[in-house]
Amino acid sequence: MKNPRLVFLAALAGIAALALSAAGPEPSADFRATVERLVRTARETNGAYDTIRGLTDSVGPRLSGSPGDARAVAWAEAALKRLGFANVRAETVTVPRWERGEESGEIVSPAPFRLSLCALGGSVGTPAGGIEAEVVEAQSLEGVDALGEKAKGRIVFVWKVMERKSDGSGYGATVPIRGGAASRAAKVGAIGVLIRSVGTSNARFPHTGAMSYQEGVAKIPAAALANPDADLVHRLLEGGKVVRVRFALGARMLPDAASANVVGEIPGREKPEEIVVLGGHLDSWDLGQGAIDDAAGLGIVIEAARLIGQLPKRPRRTLRVVAFANEENGLAGARAYAKGHAAELPLHVAAIESDSGAGRVSGFGWTAGPAAEPYLASVAAILKPFGLGDVKKGGGGADIGPLRAAGVPVFSPIQDSSRYFDLHHSADDTFDKIDREELNTGVAAVAALAYSLAESEAPLERIPEAERASRRER
Amino acid sequence: MKNPRLVFLAALAGIAALALSAAGPEPSADFRATVERLVRTARETNGAYDTIRGLTDSVGPRLSGSPGDARAVAWAEAALKRLGFANVRAETVTVPRWERGEESGEIVSPAPFRLSLCALGGSVGTPAGGIEAEVVEAQSLEGVDALGEKAKGRIVFVWKVMERKSDGSGYGATVPIRGGAASRAAKVGAIGVLIRSVGTSNARFPHTGAMSYQEGVAKIPAAALANPDADLVHRLLEGGKVVRVRFALGARMLPDAASANVVGEIPGREKPEEIVVLGGHLDSWDLGQGAIDDAAGLGIVIEAARLIGQLPKRPRRTLRVVAFANEENGLAGARAYAKGHAAELPLHVAAIESDSGAGRVSGFGWTAGPAAEPYLASVAAILKPFGLGDVKKGGGGADIGPLRAAGVPVFSPIQDSSRYFDLHHSADDTFDKIDREELNTGVAAVAALAYSLAESEAPLERIPEAERASRRER
Repeated sequence: MKNPRLVFLAALAGIAALALSAAGPEPSADFRATVERLVRTARETNGAYDTIRGLTDSVGPRLSGSPGDARAVAWAEAALKRLGFANVRAETVTVPRWERGEESGEIVSPAPFRLSLCALGGSVGTPAGGIEAEVVEAQSLEGVDALGEKAKGRIVFVWKVMERKSDGSGYGATVPIRGGAASRAAKVGAIGVLIRSVGTSNARFPHTGAMSYQEGVAKIPAAALANPDADLVHRLLEGGKVVRVRFALGARMLPDAASANVVGEIPGREKPEEIVVLGGHLDSWDLGQGAIDDAAGLGIVIEAARLIGQLPKRPRRTLRVVAFANEENGLAGARAYAKGHAAELPLHVAAIESDSGAGRVSGFGWTAGPAAEPYLASVAAILKPFGLGDVKKGGGGADIGPLRAAGVPVFSPIQDSSRYFDLHHSADDTFDKIDREELNTGVAAVAALAYSLAESEAPLERIPEAERASRRER
Repeated sequence: MKNPRLVFLAALAGIAALALSAAGPEPSADFRATVERLVRTARETNGAYDTIRGLTDSVGPRLSGSPGDARAVAWAEAALKRLGFANVRAETVTVPRWERGEESGEIVSPAPFRLSLCALGGSVGTPAGGIEAEVVEAQSLEGVDALGEKAKGRIVFVWKVMERKSDGSGYGATVPIRGGAASRAAKVGAIGVLIRSVGTSNARFPHTGAMSYQEGVAKIPAAALANPDADLVHRLLEGGKVVRVRFALGARMLPDAASANVVGEIPGREKPEEIVVLGGHLDSWDLGQGAIDDAAGLGIVIEAARLIGQLPKRPRRTLRVVAFANEENGLAGARAYAKGHAAELPLHVAAIESDSGAGRVSGFGWTAGPAAEPYLASVAAILKPFGLGDVKKGGGGADIGPLRAAGVPVFSPIQDSSRYFDLHHSADDTFDKIDREELNTGVAAVAALAYSLAESEAPLERIPEAERASRRER
């Protein structure tokens, strides 16, 4: 940019953008009153809490393709109908089906100790009776590579502590180990792999989660140890002990199965063909009740949409709640939705995903074209007095990744995740962990945001081509 | 008391006792300096922490009569010798041997859900394949009785929430259910019993603990549900659902086995025949590492005695550390100690037991003759600036119950037990839960108290006959 006149104009535009960004265009009194009303109503509702309880208590765990998953689909259809949604339907999705089976493990020496462990999702099983070998430790994937000959015939143990952070960012630093350790260890000759759980609690629960195998590399069984157990193995090794472990996994892949994305709508009053997606995922891991992951997200988006549907005047556009299939181990639901609705994607004006638990929400993250900012800032200004005005660039979610790739503006609540990874993917993810008051901050933020997106004069600017590639999704 | 002169004298004596109680006799500067030195040293030590780590990591769970128990006895002898104790020996104790075996359970209907449960200690097993029946709820032992016909052929479920209190007093209100529910339920025709865990955490761990059967009543299997699972069953029943549960316990009693009380001493400099017992228990439940229950107590008393042994001038009397056998399910170690040392009991001047975990200690509870109070108050006055001066009537412990019955003054640390019952008797009782700094407050209090009891001019007044019956022990 060498032309001085252009520089000057650009500077002016920058100043204008800053001013808009700070204050935003003045919303109408009616709009403001409606958003405030939604926030106040959301704070008092039992709706999300009851929805989560319904899903967790009457369905339970619902891993893709399992009988629980089928029950969940039926539950979601019935729940959306009962709550007054229109056009409720289950859109079939073919999903992978992995089954845990029975599993066990123990330290054989120096002193017998029954380990708390679980197979990582997607792992192969062990031979019946399990595998037994000396354990060698690494503290990163590169450390696994560096074991070289030392790993041969051994069980590789990757010990890396996940950091507790309020934004959940410790996950990104450890989850590649969960995903990739098995093939990295197999390459250096290991017969099995154990990892410290990708989780922040020192309660004795192992945390499962998806892993995958590299093509052409031997598939070895992979499990997570509860963190106290991992730390015990670490201490023993650190103390110079030779540690032998046996573990047996009954895990296996079964043929693909049928599941569904369950959809329900609050039709818009003026432009019903334009759609704001509110997503969470219906499937869960198999160990707990999937309460925070992701019954909570579904509870939030369903209740947010329901509250908007009860307004005296509905917003211009249609809200479409999507309970996605197979988020945890395949994202088949996300892909199927984008494919099945390909023709309609240009009419998708925004998508919100709630998949970070039930912790306190302070605002929302967004990914859209830069012209969207002033409008979002004006919404944030209304939300600020309610403690929900924290608005940051960078929003989205795994299930709405394909929508993002198509340029649809994507959003997610900014949530206190400091305790989310205590429970995430573990047997301890149960309904009793939900705090209704904290949960409702999410309902309030999502309701306000969804209404704003469905009511704006014009759709927000779509995501520029260069920014459509998904950030790391959880 | 009708004679006015006696009333006057009694009043005078009362005033004198109050004055002593408030201030206590002035301790010598040397005594004060020694106590203060012990407290300061205790705060900095790694000794208790390392002892706990040694027992938990190298031995693991050690239920009476199990191979782990035998390893624990060998460990304790070796540890006491290594730490410089004199007269180290294992005094054989015959203990009951109960074995858990494999166990599982699930809600069969309304929706399948795998339950987190464990057999209560002492329970019989189920037939292979388990038992299955509809569940009926009661909320107290009296409530079980009142079920009457409704319990016939059913699984009785006792749902009572244990209160979290810093003094651990919620335990007394719930533990009778653990001990007695099976026989009460069998009397009204139940085929099995499930209880909400006697524990304060909502983490998904079941808490085991001793139960017993009444003579002449059918023995039915008894298990504890993790609290989230118990609350789920409670919610389903509250919502009017018919709940069917299946559970299978592989539990069984085996023939009695040999274990031992392990003893080590710091001989006194003037009156080595007079003994202050410092006790904790060596056995643990089988699910976790027995870190807070009671490796912590052993770590505290062993380190307290060791620190006293390292003083330039040892106290007058002998300190005897006793790692008791079989505290958890029989108290055979406590009885064997009192029986084996019957002739020596008159020379037991005091006993301290540490069996309430590793939480912060603020002082000690005592049970002795009233004349002991001024001396204890003078010790408390020295400890007060260190936050350890909280001295209350009422101390003791299960393992020193028989000593108390013989009139021996008994003591126990006053400990913050608010989180103790989160872990107690569960798989989550592992070494990582120990906080070294909090732990060392216990070492400091016990060292100061033990030294004071071993160094006093004369032994404290023994417990009056009327007060020798044990209070409820944990």
